[in-house]
Amino acid sequence: MRTSPDLPRRLAAEFMGTALLLATVVGSGIMAERLADGNVAIALLGNTIPTGAILVVLITMFGPISGAHFNPAVSLVFRLRKELSNREAGLYVLAQVAGGLIGVWVAHLMFGEALLQFSLKVRSGGAQWFAEGVATFGLVAVILITLKVREAAVPMAVGLYITAAYWFTASTSFANPAVTIARGFSDTFAGIRPADVLPFIIAQCLAAALAWVYCNWQLRQETFSE
Amino acid sequence: MRTSPDLPRRLAAEFMGTALLLATVVGSGIMAERLADGNVAIALLGNTIPTGAILVVLITMFGPISGAHFNPAVSLVFRLRKELSNREAGLYVLAQVAGGLIGVWVAHLMFGEALLQFSLKVRSGGAQWFAEGVATFGLVAVILITLKVREAAVPMAVGLYITAAYWFTASTSFANPAVTIARGFSDTFAGIRPADVLPFIIAQCLAAALAWVYCNWQLRQETFSE
Amino acid sequence: MRTSPDLPRRLAAEFMGTALLLATVVGSGIMAERLADGNVAIALLGNTIPTGAILVVLITMFGPISGAHFNPAVSLVFRLRKELSNREAGLYVLAQVAGGLIGVWVAHLMFGEALLQFSLKVRSGGAQWFAEGVATFGLVAVILITLKVREAAVPMAVGLYITAAYWFTASTSFANPAVTIARGFSDTFAGIRPADVLPFIIAQCLAAALAWVYCNWQLRQETFSE
Amino acid sequence: MRTSPDLPRRLAAEFMGTALLLATVVGSGIMAERLADGNVAIALLGNTIPTGAILVVLITMFGPISGAHFNPAVSLVFRLRKELSNREAGLYVLAQVAGGLIGVWVAHLMFGEALLQFSLKVRSGGAQWFAEGVATFGLVAVILITLKVREAAVPMAVGLYITAAYWFTASTSFANPAVTIARGFSDTFAGIRPADVLPFIIAQCLAAALAWVYCNWQLRQETFSE
Repeated sequence: MRTSPDLPRRLAAEFMGTALLLATVVGSGIMAERLADGNVAIALLGNTIPTGAILVVLITMFGPISGAHFNPAVSLVFRLRKELSNREAGLYVLAQVAGGLIGVWVAHLMFGEALLQFSLKVRSGGAQWFAEGVATFGLVAVILITLKVREAAVPMAVGLYITAAYWFTASTSFANPAVTIARGFSDTFAGIRPADVLPFIIAQCLAAALAWVYCNWQLRQETFSE
Repeated sequence: MRTSPDLPRRLAAEFMGTALLLATVVGSGIMAERLADGNVAIALLGNTIPTGAILVVLITMFGPISGAHFNPAVSLVFRLRKELSNREAGLYVLAQVAGGLIGVWVAHLMFGEALLQFSLKVRSGGAQWFAEGVATFGLVAVILITLKVREAAVPMAVGLYITAAYWFTASTSFANPAVTIARGFSDTFAGIRPADVLPFIIAQCLAAALAWVYCNWQLRQETFSE
Repeated sequence: MRTSPDLPRRLAAEFMGTALLLATVVGSGIMAERLADGNVAIALLGNTIPTGAILVVLITMFGPISGAHFNPAVSLVFRLRKELSNREAGLYVLAQVAGGLIGVWVAHLMFGEALLQFSLKVRSGGAQWFAEGVATFGLVAVILITLKVREAAVPMAVGLYITAAYWFTASTSFANPAVTIARGFSDTFAGIRPADVLPFIIAQCLAAALAWVYCNWQLRQETFSE
Repeated sequence: MRTSPDLPRRLAAEFMGTALLLATVVGSGIMAERLADGNVAIALLGNTIPTGAILVVLITMFGPISGAHFNPAVSLVFRLRKELSNREAGLYVLAQVAGGLIGVWVAHLMFGEALLQFSLKVRSGGAQWFAEGVATFGLVAVILITLKVREAAVPMAVGLYITAAYWFTASTSFANPAVTIARGFSDTFAGIRPADVLPFIIAQCLAAALAWVYCNWQLRQETFSE
């Protein structure tokens, strides 16, 4: 994904995209929980479908501008691939974390919630960390392999992958350090206790690096033409 | 999106598209509420999925004919971009408002409801207006950026965006003055009290203009080739 | 949609496609109603999503073979367009009706239901007939316009249109005489009382012809290039 | 689908894909059942949507590498078509069965379930076997015909087909011997009693061979160009 715009415009794209992503994750979580009458599966459907949908949209529109990472673990991988410099990767991560936080606050404003919140939702333990590892490994593998074999399908692939991962991982698949930090600031359906954020991020970054190694091997041999 | 047909055919497309859109929004709202047994999240799913689906269809089929705005806020932006004259923009808006109203009445007829209704549903206050602003800003940004970077993806992008926005905004994302006016005439699931229509429209138009400014900056620099 | 295979293979495609369509409509209706615990909106979701999905699949695979009508009202329109002879159109309709019936029976066998059934579900009255007219008018317009402006999008457009129409029409949008006849033979979720079949078919055929007239006018002027 | 990578990389793709597929089928089944509050239709929605979504993703990414069978019945058909040697087909099946098992165990680990389980869920009898036959016949026909008429649409076609088949078949459409074996090892929502596995596999393989015969006839005559 060659990205031609200058760095400020790319950072703006990362910021806007992550903000809209978090507004959707947190906003649809609030809406779904308020309406679902205690049936958590219905609430999760009302959280999953919007999240998957907005990812397709955001990656379609911002992919050609910034690469549409919205995710420090993904930017880490593109740093490993030497497609971002240290400085670019650092600024990408800043833009993502800032965008995520703003997105959460936009959701709170829209739903008349207190702006500043800290989640009380415990998400901890080996099973959860393993789930985050699986989710992020899968996400990065989807991105790297699809980029190589059929680049135009990346937005749909990532949106559908997260749609699935919300349900097949016990943690509902954060798979993204900026998303994890931002959700620490929302004591709503999608929240995570701030104390539980760091282990999630470690699991995510380790899994992203592992996926990069795997994809290097899986894809080394061939050129695909389409 | 170059539009070659003559103005009457373009206006017919705007009329038909907005009518079908409103028949879907209001009709599926009635159906969903009647069947959902009081679980509003399920009703909203039954309202969201049809609305997102029909938008993909309508923009696919009418996009090459009229641009498939179905939305005065979008036509306003295309006026700002000088792709519509004042006269064209005015007639587009008329066709959209008329189509929206007819669509609501078609829905009422199909479901055996009284033809002429006025909604009693209060949708008011700063949080709601802010939500309408966010929803419309996002919608216009999705349209303008996707049009530039990957025009063929516009129908899917708009359909999925609205699918998400039904859930991530507290107002369920009207984001469209013609839709807002039309829904004032339906005292059903999707309705809005006529007295609450004008502030929604103001928020929508301001946000649309703001999105146009943002996209000008975001997209100024580059030519994307696909 | 130029169809090159010989007539027997085209008829086989119409037969197989309509059979799979009806197996899906009736089978998913049975499954959804059995599992939905009395919540009809959930049952209708479980009926809608499979139906929309299978339509995309069937039109993708059989479109280049037979045109993928699966619908006598659509074949009637292609007869009016002189793309089918009287004999071809007649045989298409026969293949569709036979396929539909077999599909219903396949569903009954899979779910351990009595093979031969007649529905007791009343679907009658002006609102229902008007709804069938709207649904079929929309379906034919979607097909004819999308075929002209973006042929590759027809499968997705029809699948999403029916997804929406299940909810925005009071009749859950049969919009297809072969489907209507076949569903007369199933006293399950998707059934229709045999006595109510004929008025549905009349409404469908009238609306299909009307949509053909409208599309002729809407599309007459231009050549679209893609 | 020409597959250029060497055999180890193709087997790795089959292994990884089947593992992720089973992690999704079993994991989302556990999640959905835990949250659905006893409403099985909602649980099945929460199982269906992720499964359909992940199939689109996995076939998009691994299709150009290994063909993305993930299914011994499909590999059998490609053996019949002489696109796989006996040795390749055998190794494909091994990779699929091993991947499926690992995927189930990954799901168990993520959800804190006992690793080794055997399902107690009875899925037996003529109606179930007939349903598996229909499901697999349809799956193979979708693959073979779509491959011929519109290869780029195969991932979407298969994902949507299984989305439909979960609901239109009484067995929720296993349609895959590796999936059937793996689900024998999970006493959760998606499980099947080990004693019931073999008849399912027999029905699946017979139906796959039958679909191959049908598609040979259906497709023999023409070359489609796209």
